[in-house]
Amino acid sequence: MMNRIGGIFLKKTIVVIAHPEIENSTVQQFLLEGSQKLQNVESYILKETKMDVYEERRKLKEFDRIIFQFPMYWYSAPADLKRWIDDIFSMEFAENELQGKELGLVVSLGLSEKNFASGMSERYTLSEIFRPFEALANKCRMIFLPIFPISLFSYLKENERKRLLIQYEQYLTKENITTFESQENWFKEKIYYLISTDIKIDEKEKLNNILNVMEENRDNLEDLLVLVKEMRLDE
Amino acid sequence: MMNRIGGIFLKKTIVVIAHPEIENSTVQQFLLEGSQKLQNVESYILKETKMDVYEERRKLKEFDRIIFQFPMYWYSAPADLKRWIDDIFSMEFAENELQGKELGLVVSLGLSEKNFASGMSERYTLSEIFRPFEALANKCRMIFLPIFPISLFSYLKENERKRLLIQYEQYLTKENITTFESQENWFKEKIYYLISTDIKIDEKEKLNNILNVMEENRDNLEDLLVLVKEMRLDE
Repeated sequence: MMNRIGGIFLKKTIVVIAHPEIENSTVQQFLLEGSQKLQNVESYILKETKMDVYEERRKLKEFDRIIFQFPMYWYSAPADLKRWIDDIFSMEFAENELQGKELGLVVSLGLSEKNFASGMSERYTLSEIFRPFEALANKCRMIFLPIFPISLFSYLKENERKRLLIQYEQYLTKENITTFESQENWFKEKIYYLISTDIKIDEKEKLNNILNVMEENRDNLEDLLVLVKEMRLDE
Repeated sequence: MMNRIGGIFLKKTIVVIAHPEIENSTVQQFLLEGSQKLQNVESYILKETKMDVYEERRKLKEFDRIIFQFPMYWYSAPADLKRWIDDIFSMEFAENELQGKELGLVVSLGLSEKNFASGMSERYTLSEIFRPFEALANKCRMIFLPIFPISLFSYLKENERKRLLIQYEQYLTKENITTFESQENWFKEKIYYLISTDIKIDEKEKLNNILNVMEENRDNLEDLLVLVKEMRLDE
């Protein structure tokens, strides 16, 4: 189910989006634009219309990673997403068809993330508030990813938005490991992909140079790691 | 807003029920039958039809205690209830009109309550799972009541159902204090009410006798409590 590009595996991801007024949501439009550029990522906007439950289940099974993306409404997802979950996730389907897949949440917040803590206005952490989704993942024997919160999007500056976009792209496609090496591999894979596309020769040249620099840096880093290890042994 | 009957205050309670197939639910029918006999309790079954948001808000304001009653679907309420909350609870309404009222949850479960714990199949406690409702109550400056779970209703024996019914009636109408005296007062109030209704003279006589016995027991209990206190002082 995973695609191999440039020697690295890519997650196949579906983003299930619930937002009652998605056309008017700057953050949702921003994220949609970002995800549309990604290979192996499909976005799926929930509508209130009647759906084909079997078709929805069949579709879900194709993906390695399922992302629920929504604005937090009263400490949960909007009703549309709950309706979809209630309809699609029969016990039979949940227990047998989703094992080993990943479940993630991209949640936009109308207030700063620091308010979600003991003694602060919202009292509970986001991990506590979204426990029902973690429990759902557990029941399906899925892997629950760290929550991806987006606070006060409209106040973000241009460079903060750019950083957010990269983090979001990683959340959708990078393997769920927080090492520096996994970050590096993710960027490498993006570059391999760009090289494989229809770009100019001199741009390919530049990208190959970047890859070479990354390789050299990796070698230097590994030499340093060996040195640090030896120094520790000498202590 | 509270009614005074027989010298004791009674909560004015609304039970907001969300169940997609309420006619086929034995537990919901059982509870409905129980609550219909109660003075000061109104039951309100959510329908999928369009509602008058202002009328719903006006109605809610009349009550001291608001109960959400539903079967647990994927570690939360069915989508219908979330839809209703999303529509009715504007920030303006939530922050200004509900302060000091009580919020309770009556949740029917398809498996035993003991599974809701660390190391058990569901991993999390019901308090953790329903944290979003507690957070909602906090935001509205409402008092969150202990959750009232009903596990495996269809397996309950006749006497267990009777006990459940009394506990349920208390959950809807008794003040939220766990002392023996508050239990006693709740039963007294029920008896006062029965005496005030159109029952036979000899039945009134019987009920008055029960009240007298309760009074005597209360006197004896208080004498005992004084004695215990003195013995402690002597130690």
